[in-house]
Amino acid sequence: MNIHLHQTHHALADFDAIQATLEKTFVAPGVHLYPESFLTGYPLADLCLQVPFVDAYEAYLAHLTAWLQGLPPSENRVALVGALAYERGTDGVPLRIRNVALELVPGQAPREVYTKRLLPNYDIFDEQKYFTPGKAPGVWKWQDKRFALLICEDMWASSFHELDPCADLVPLGPFDGVFNLSASPWDVQKPGKRVQRARVLSHTLQAPFFYVNRVGGEDEILFDGRSFLVDGEASARTLPAFAEAHESFELPDGGPYAAPTNKLRDHTWESLFTPRFAEEKTLPRRLHRWSDEECAQVHDALVFGLKEYARKNGFRRFLVAVSGGMDSALVLALVKAALEPDEGIEAVYMPSIHSAPLSWDLSIDLCERLRVPLRSLPIKFLHANTKMAFQSTFPDAFGGLTDENVQSRLRGLLLYTRSNQTGAMVVNTSNKSELAVGYSTQYGDSVGALSLLGDLYKSEVYRLAEWINATRGPQIPEGILTRAPSAELREDQKDQDSLPPYDRLDPMLEGILNYRLGHAGLVAMGFAAEEVTRVLKLHTGSEYKRRQFCPIIKIKPKSFGFGYRIPLTKHSGFYFPRG
Amino acid sequence: MNIHLHQTHHALADFDAIQATLEKTFVAPGVHLYPESFLTGYPLADLCLQVPFVDAYEAYLAHLTAWLQGLPPSENRVALVGALAYERGTDGVPLRIRNVALELVPGQAPREVYTKRLLPNYDIFDEQKYFTPGKAPGVWKWQDKRFALLICEDMWASSFHELDPCADLVPLGPFDGVFNLSASPWDVQKPGKRVQRARVLSHTLQAPFFYVNRVGGEDEILFDGRSFLVDGEASARTLPAFAEAHESFELPDGGPYAAPTNKLRDHTWESLFTPRFAEEKTLPRRLHRWSDEECAQVHDALVFGLKEYARKNGFRRFLVAVSGGMDSALVLALVKAALEPDEGIEAVYMPSIHSAPLSWDLSIDLCERLRVPLRSLPIKFLHANTKMAFQSTFPDAFGGLTDENVQSRLRGLLLYTRSNQTGAMVVNTSNKSELAVGYSTQYGDSVGALSLLGDLYKSEVYRLAEWINATRGPQIPEGILTRAPSAELREDQKDQDSLPPYDRLDPMLEGILNYRLGHAGLVAMGFAAEEVTRVLKLHTGSEYKRRQFCPIIKIKPKSFGFGYRIPLTKHSGFYFPRG
Repeated sequence: MNIHLHQTHHALADFDAIQATLEKTFVAPGVHLYPESFLTGYPLADLCLQVPFVDAYEAYLAHLTAWLQGLPPSENRVALVGALAYERGTDGVPLRIRNVALELVPGQAPREVYTKRLLPNYDIFDEQKYFTPGKAPGVWKWQDKRFALLICEDMWASSFHELDPCADLVPLGPFDGVFNLSASPWDVQKPGKRVQRARVLSHTLQAPFFYVNRVGGEDEILFDGRSFLVDGEASARTLPAFAEAHESFELPDGGPYAAPTNKLRDHTWESLFTPRFAEEKTLPRRLHRWSDEECAQVHDALVFGLKEYARKNGFRRFLVAVSGGMDSALVLALVKAALEPDEGIEAVYMPSIHSAPLSWDLSIDLCERLRVPLRSLPIKFLHANTKMAFQSTFPDAFGGLTDENVQSRLRGLLLYTRSNQTGAMVVNTSNKSELAVGYSTQYGDSVGALSLLGDLYKSEVYRLAEWINATRGPQIPEGILTRAPSAELREDQKDQDSLPPYDRLDPMLEGILNYRLGHAGLVAMGFAAEEVTRVLKLHTGSEYKRRQFCPIIKIKPKSFGFGYRIPLTKHSGFYFPRG
Repeated sequence: MNIHLHQTHHALADFDAIQATLEKTFVAPGVHLYPESFLTGYPLADLCLQVPFVDAYEAYLAHLTAWLQGLPPSENRVALVGALAYERGTDGVPLRIRNVALELVPGQAPREVYTKRLLPNYDIFDEQKYFTPGKAPGVWKWQDKRFALLICEDMWASSFHELDPCADLVPLGPFDGVFNLSASPWDVQKPGKRVQRARVLSHTLQAPFFYVNRVGGEDEILFDGRSFLVDGEASARTLPAFAEAHESFELPDGGPYAAPTNKLRDHTWESLFTPRFAEEKTLPRRLHRWSDEECAQVHDALVFGLKEYARKNGFRRFLVAVSGGMDSALVLALVKAALEPDEGIEAVYMPSIHSAPLSWDLSIDLCERLRVPLRSLPIKFLHANTKMAFQSTFPDAFGGLTDENVQSRLRGLLLYTRSNQTGAMVVNTSNKSELAVGYSTQYGDSVGALSLLGDLYKSEVYRLAEWINATRGPQIPEGILTRAPSAELREDQKDQDSLPPYDRLDPMLEGILNYRLGHAGLVAMGFAAEEVTRVLKLHTGSEYKRRQFCPIIKIKPKSFGFGYRIPLTKHSGFYFPRG
């Protein structure tokens, strides 16, 4: 028996494209597996509650049914597709939505065979907002075989919940295979975790484990595909990352398998929320340095995420503000890597009176290496004019932060003015270290439609740039990699005037963001109390900037964005020591 | 027996203030009721997962316990307070958090008496993300009385969930009273709903219903207090809105009560998500016009919300860009109403070449009436300079939207420059109609720390302004109320050049936002197909602007913000007719 994995790639609610894929791929004999929510896309958020969406989806289901019933009846092939099931009351109003698997057989109407039982509701997930969970374990028969059915989260039982769909399946075996239809967001640690977990379940359910995952970028979230088959300890056979793919496997006889384990619950309370409730003393004072493999993954993810946002939202031109610094250089290299031959890119350099001549030279060098057209649009005069206009109206001093922010905001204004002229998408250049401490100007350097680096600490920005230079040729001038980071908003300004060096700042931020630490915890990690206070103040005082920031491509288990929820308004005294 | 309702008012996690309130108010004999999550504040979001928060909270609980145990033992008074209960594993890592009621008795340690059973997870709520629900109905005894215990959502059972905490209580009666500890966000329809629902439950549980609610503004969400006692059909006795208050009631003998009803489930699937799944034909083509009572509520809510955000975040000065138009005039009046004697306010008028002289005259008139200092900071020269700088670098045409947006963004820049000088909080002036159709400039007129009008349609902005003039004296010049709305970004521009008149646009938007309609639904309401297409295109195409918008004070069941979740990236064809 053949098992076909279809890791598909469509925009949310693009029913025509979904049907076209089905017609093209649901052909060969065997069992065809399509991802979770294949018929709608995922995550829909409030879209699934809107009348026009529900009407269009149900009209599509009717079309799909007619098409399927019009096919010559055949028992040689069957598909399992992820879908939504709306239960309506007598007045036509939906009462419940379930996240289901439909069985498609040529010549017959679709048939519901399973409802997802574990609804993730942590980090970026809010499925318990929309869906009603199923109650019955997923056992599905076809021809002479019996299969265990799971939808995505069902494989990740947690100590937080009572339910464990996989444990419920164990007494219902034996199975000839386990199928998981997924829409599983990518992060740099995820692919390994999935295979590892599937292997445990393959042993436990004593059957080969087929995992099919969707492909797509949905605002901040990426779905990487990487569908796979694992069977006991046999090496995993994996489909490509970040690309639609279709692959067929012969159903293995299966095994050998280890004895079933009792340790089925993989998620702990901690891993649900991802950042760990840490014993401070065990934390490294250095940030994990990405391996080449991790750099490659992150690079491909960022390029894919940008392409997705741009294509699906109709952008064919890109605009990047380059400064001669590291962040904008990396962004430019990534945008360039994402570019199709018929798409355009433009770099704009906007020097102020504080910009070093070296910044211009490095910008030219960078743009020549990347073959990106570069324009210089000095803000010196506008800066001076703004200051004059201001001083003629307001007697107050015009210096310090006021004067620095004006420069940054003028750049934001000019960048968006250029975007208005050309229709180009402005790609943001902020990194996670800056965001975490508010080292940026609201409506200034923080502008953009999408952030590529908002989930990379500054050290990781350097690491990824070095990897690019090492593997794709010297795209980024050495001078950019080696010069001291500076916002160039005042004379001789360096990041380190305001912030600890990044090799201390970044692991401190990792302590705050990924291990939920406050002052005591960071001091226990070995950082100086005074510096910790300074960083925590910057961090807790800049929530309002993050709230108005653009979507950030998520590359880690915990990122700023929808999955990160800190009130702006709070008494933040508990972060600091008392007294 | 006396029942004391304490509708308290603290910032999140302000443990010192919480303890001080307890010490001051937990004095008289009787039963003292404090709100849901009184000991922590609500909603905490991810704060409740942070090590320093948990440590500080548990240190506070230890302090509270010591204080309580140090009091002279007494059986004459008892308190029920909302709190969180952390269950930790052997390694110290929390495994679960429950939303509980603690019983406080002088001379004894606090004792957990109830865990909240219904965890709201719709609109702005995400309690299922953090909390584990309780299983047992809340029955609590003191002296010779028996009481039914509820925490907030427990009184609002829904067809979406299987659980109904109130139905479970019915067979456990009779009760001498029902207590609900709440942290219930306000909207303009909410106070009436609460009393109505409490009355149903008072009849059903055959006992007087005591409801205590917290007071506070937490970013976009307001808690209004308005604690009350209802007993059968007897008129409700209600505490003040938007102010801390403490009031004592004699426990009524109770009744008479009607026969218990079976219709206990109040929430439907629809009301959970608030916007209704509408039968289009029944929808009014006109927006509901606020009554004077509704205007008063909204006015007080906006003033309170602004005060809360400002005080809790340390702002003592406010900055408003006035244009001589309606929105900024109303915002200025509201800010002025929120002002304490020691706080400052400043209006800035920033005319461009397209600003009518009338706009300046009306701005002066407005600021004189409100006694707000007004400065004029013309952007003509900066506008011309920007255009020149641009044209010397980029050959492309500089007109149309490019030229319009520059003016708006220059104003955003100057406003924030002024804010940098004075430390003033920039109050946003956008309204819900503009936001819904993207009729604003990103990083331009859309800037601000907080939006007062982002949940008011333009028609409601006028209605509230008229109510202010009618009840508080003519604060807003008649000329502002009667002139045609204009962004004044090009010659003779009027809103109606780009948008349908607001008396058509606003009910169309209500159809989209509150009734979830698409093209077919709006046409069935009686709007012209072409105009509907235009409005839907503006609406679906401007999601990205709303994503980066500041927090909006929520005054309605459905508002833009955390409770409104529409993907930016989607195939939006389903909003429109096919073909």
